[in-house]
Amino acid sequence: MFGLMQRQQLTIGGLIRHAATNHPRREIVSRSFDGSIVRSDWGRVERRARQVAGALAGLGLKAGDRVATLAWNRLPHLELYYGVSGAGMVLHTVNPRLFPEQIRYIVDHGGATVLCVDPDLLPIVEPLLGELPALRHVVALCDAASLPSSAHPGVVAYETLLANAAPIEGWPDLDENAASSLCYTSGTTGNPKGVLYSHRSTVLHAMSALSADSMALSARDSVLVVTPLFHVNAWGIPYSSAMCGAKLVLPGSAIDAPSLYELARDEGATFSLGVPTVWFGFCDHLARERTAEERMALRLDRIFTGGAATPRSLIERFRDLLGVETLQAWGMTETSPVATVCRPLAHHDVLDAEGEVELRARQGRAVFGIELRIEDEDGNALPRDGEASGLLKVRGPWVLSGYYGSEAGSALDGEGWFDTGDVARIDPDGFLQITDRLKDVIKSGGEWISSIDLENAATSHAKVAEAAVIGVAHPRWQERPLMLVRLHPGEACGAGEIVEHLTGQVARWWLPDDILFVDDLPHTATGKLLKTKLRETYAGHFGG
Amino acid sequence: MFGLMQRQQLTIGGLIRHAATNHPRREIVSRSFDGSIVRSDWGRVERRARQVAGALAGLGLKAGDRVATLAWNRLPHLELYYGVSGAGMVLHTVNPRLFPEQIRYIVDHGGATVLCVDPDLLPIVEPLLGELPALRHVVALCDAASLPSSAHPGVVAYETLLANAAPIEGWPDLDENAASSLCYTSGTTGNPKGVLYSHRSTVLHAMSALSADSMALSARDSVLVVTPLFHVNAWGIPYSSAMCGAKLVLPGSAIDAPSLYELARDEGATFSLGVPTVWFGFCDHLARERTAEERMALRLDRIFTGGAATPRSLIERFRDLLGVETLQAWGMTETSPVATVCRPLAHHDVLDAEGEVELRARQGRAVFGIELRIEDEDGNALPRDGEASGLLKVRGPWVLSGYYGSEAGSALDGEGWFDTGDVARIDPDGFLQITDRLKDVIKSGGEWISSIDLENAATSHAKVAEAAVIGVAHPRWQERPLMLVRLHPGEACGAGEIVEHLTGQVARWWLPDDILFVDDLPHTATGKLLKTKLRETYAGHFGG
Repeated sequence: MFGLMQRQQLTIGGLIRHAATNHPRREIVSRSFDGSIVRSDWGRVERRARQVAGALAGLGLKAGDRVATLAWNRLPHLELYYGVSGAGMVLHTVNPRLFPEQIRYIVDHGGATVLCVDPDLLPIVEPLLGELPALRHVVALCDAASLPSSAHPGVVAYETLLANAAPIEGWPDLDENAASSLCYTSGTTGNPKGVLYSHRSTVLHAMSALSADSMALSARDSVLVVTPLFHVNAWGIPYSSAMCGAKLVLPGSAIDAPSLYELARDEGATFSLGVPTVWFGFCDHLARERTAEERMALRLDRIFTGGAATPRSLIERFRDLLGVETLQAWGMTETSPVATVCRPLAHHDVLDAEGEVELRARQGRAVFGIELRIEDEDGNALPRDGEASGLLKVRGPWVLSGYYGSEAGSALDGEGWFDTGDVARIDPDGFLQITDRLKDVIKSGGEWISSIDLENAATSHAKVAEAAVIGVAHPRWQERPLMLVRLHPGEACGAGEIVEHLTGQVARWWLPDDILFVDDLPHTATGKLLKTKLRETYAGHFGG
Repeated sequence: MFGLMQRQQLTIGGLIRHAATNHPRREIVSRSFDGSIVRSDWGRVERRARQVAGALAGLGLKAGDRVATLAWNRLPHLELYYGVSGAGMVLHTVNPRLFPEQIRYIVDHGGATVLCVDPDLLPIVEPLLGELPALRHVVALCDAASLPSSAHPGVVAYETLLANAAPIEGWPDLDENAASSLCYTSGTTGNPKGVLYSHRSTVLHAMSALSADSMALSARDSVLVVTPLFHVNAWGIPYSSAMCGAKLVLPGSAIDAPSLYELARDEGATFSLGVPTVWFGFCDHLARERTAEERMALRLDRIFTGGAATPRSLIERFRDLLGVETLQAWGMTETSPVATVCRPLAHHDVLDAEGEVELRARQGRAVFGIELRIEDEDGNALPRDGEASGLLKVRGPWVLSGYYGSEAGSALDGEGWFDTGDVARIDPDGFLQITDRLKDVIKSGGEWISSIDLENAATSHAKVAEAAVIGVAHPRWQERPLMLVRLHPGEACGAGEIVEHLTGQVARWWLPDDILFVDDLPHTATGKLLKTKLRETYAGHFGG
């Protein structure tokens, strides 16, 4: 027997219609490519998005066709979010910070026929155009007058395209399982892989973000969107803010700390989100360049961090500098991304300041919709006792089922779980703590050593700028840890001093078998340590 | 092209599994039928619910079969919420405060084969048993020892049933559009009509309740559930609290103000919900019987009100007595129920105290998922200008499509809108203000007069206990308002004094053509004014 309730589909078109109906005048502020501030609102974004949809239909695009973007957090990018997906096409956001060959691979693999590019990013794209056979149109996200004179003659200005298009009248009814957007993961090995979101997964994920235990996004918020729109849909913010009627503040490409400070202050930002690296720079700026009065001028009340583990020191700095709560979250491109959020429970109110920071340095509890499982090497479920550490798997309506180009379900195990590749513990209150990447964990004598714990312990030494720990084959122990250390400029240090510093912070049998000092460590384009490279270089170091 | 995301169904079984996994030890406190306090938690509720499911399967029940309840807010009722619906059967909650004939009609119409009854409510049910042909089992929600000796011999104790049943191992995979629960509206005309919720509508509605702009329910909350579990699923609280891991406090049948005060204090309630009538009694108690220190002992930080318009005086009393925010909401049995919630926007921060109270006395803004439309008598959409007043229609995934026993879609107009029967205005910020029921609005000379506005204006007079305004046929104006007034005991008042009091509060042409003083006014079993009766009685009053 079926219920007798309405069966509206959860679609991105329905979402922007909601915003235009209920909070049409709520502001969107954007720093443009020329540095100027432009102002729009949800009502205008909806009208412009209908023009985008009309223009794309005019170019012959149909439902399911891909429209790629190479763009910063600016107003036209937001309009494309709704114009493309709302009309049934697929928005394929591409990270302009990748290497040109990766950009070419990703755009080509996604199969976009239209590529929309910020004018300042045209120089990245133009050399690649001859190698993108599916591409038929390149749109520069500016007006005709602002189109660089050097631009490829085939490039059309966004405003010209829109001016010549009739807006669609309303948003089409779509199957909520239809594809809506596409984002590639940049792993440290192999080619990037595409995650193809659906309208349903996107809307459910955005609803979850509004919940009091997640971002608690509300109509009262002014959101400074530091997370790029090309990073997993900016963690869903374009959708969740339209849903509740938050004000959006888009910083463009100016995400240096002074620019972020000024924008946060001028636009009354109450909420912001981004990776820890950005926030370290922001806190440095606040501490060194701003007076207490200038810090007080900010209205931020919480910072949402993810993309990498949030160090305790960052949580403490936000607390001490701004009286602001840091909410650490965990997720992946494959999980839309928000899967867990760290907020203290009522019984944690008794914690002292240090205990609270320690708690907040965990990845947090699963939001409703997300199931977590940790398992041992044989696939047996491990207990949620805060002790057992195992491979983390995840399941839920905004978790991927297969990568773009493969079959649905092909990325899952027999029971529908997606293997995150992370190693984690879960405590009895449900708090997740990621301890390592499975491929980075060091398997020593049948036990696991966390490379991340060792790196964190090393970087807490004042002289250490960065540390990398890898497992190297060992004749007796299977693997043993090797630590590579980059010191701050001008510092001098020996292995003994590092070992002494580590002792007491980690178990004795975790101490690295060797510590090497290096000038530089290899990184991916997105700034992650490239441990595959290190493992190759040092493969025979212990004669294993 | 479909997205490549997982397609988990949104089910009530999945919801209680989430609670048992993520917050198994979060407490559920319940006042039992004998007045004692019993304690459980989400983990235990899930295990007991699997026993309920096993027991019902043992009785031969299959997916879609109805299980009726006649019960207060007690632990077994909560276990049935999950045991019945989670296993694929339909929980049919029945209001024990209705007249026996209405109870018989509703249970019979719903077609339940099992009826679960609180032991203190058995005397209501037993005389009806012979007239419920579909009913095969009556379960008293207690153990065998507590079964009243007077009980019908066929009545089985809940604990006996559970003790003899094997729990189901896990929650079945269900189509999210399957029916989950059934609740009847008690209108003022005609027979009650059933609203048949689905798993999908229930889960989406619960997700919405967690959002910061709605109840903002969180894992930190302790929820005193004053709204009965038989009133539209207690506004979704059993589901939304399992979703976030809130503590639940179930007051049983003791919803007198002193009992509620003690329970709120002892269990640290932070959130409560109920109809204005209950809260008036609660505030009276706080003001008259409790010291400032005793009021301070409460940890309530917000009160959620609905079911009837919330008077300004209640909002002011909660603010002044407890420093507590009153959140008015609007909805119907047909809307699951939460459709709008009233929370000030950021630009309302400039309002003075009176302005804020006035704002909070509106029904609020549509939550995401709900679409509102006001239209004129010809079906044309009216503007959201805060002036135009018209018939309110509503649409969304937790709004009904047809009443139980009818076709899907049969309760909707051609564009899928459900006619609420209410008359309302919507302002440019999206704030809804219900001005009347369509059938109660007075149509005078082509314009509408709000009976509710007139009644509110009258009851603000110190001598007036209650007022009812009806439209009576009029030879010239089509209809004109007639006001019936019940004075507080011992008061004396004439029509002139009332007219003088109304003048200035309403337009001159709204003033009633006659004012009659009465000893009593007719009400429905749920306490609503029975205006149909008044219209019959006074049909010829103006000779129309």
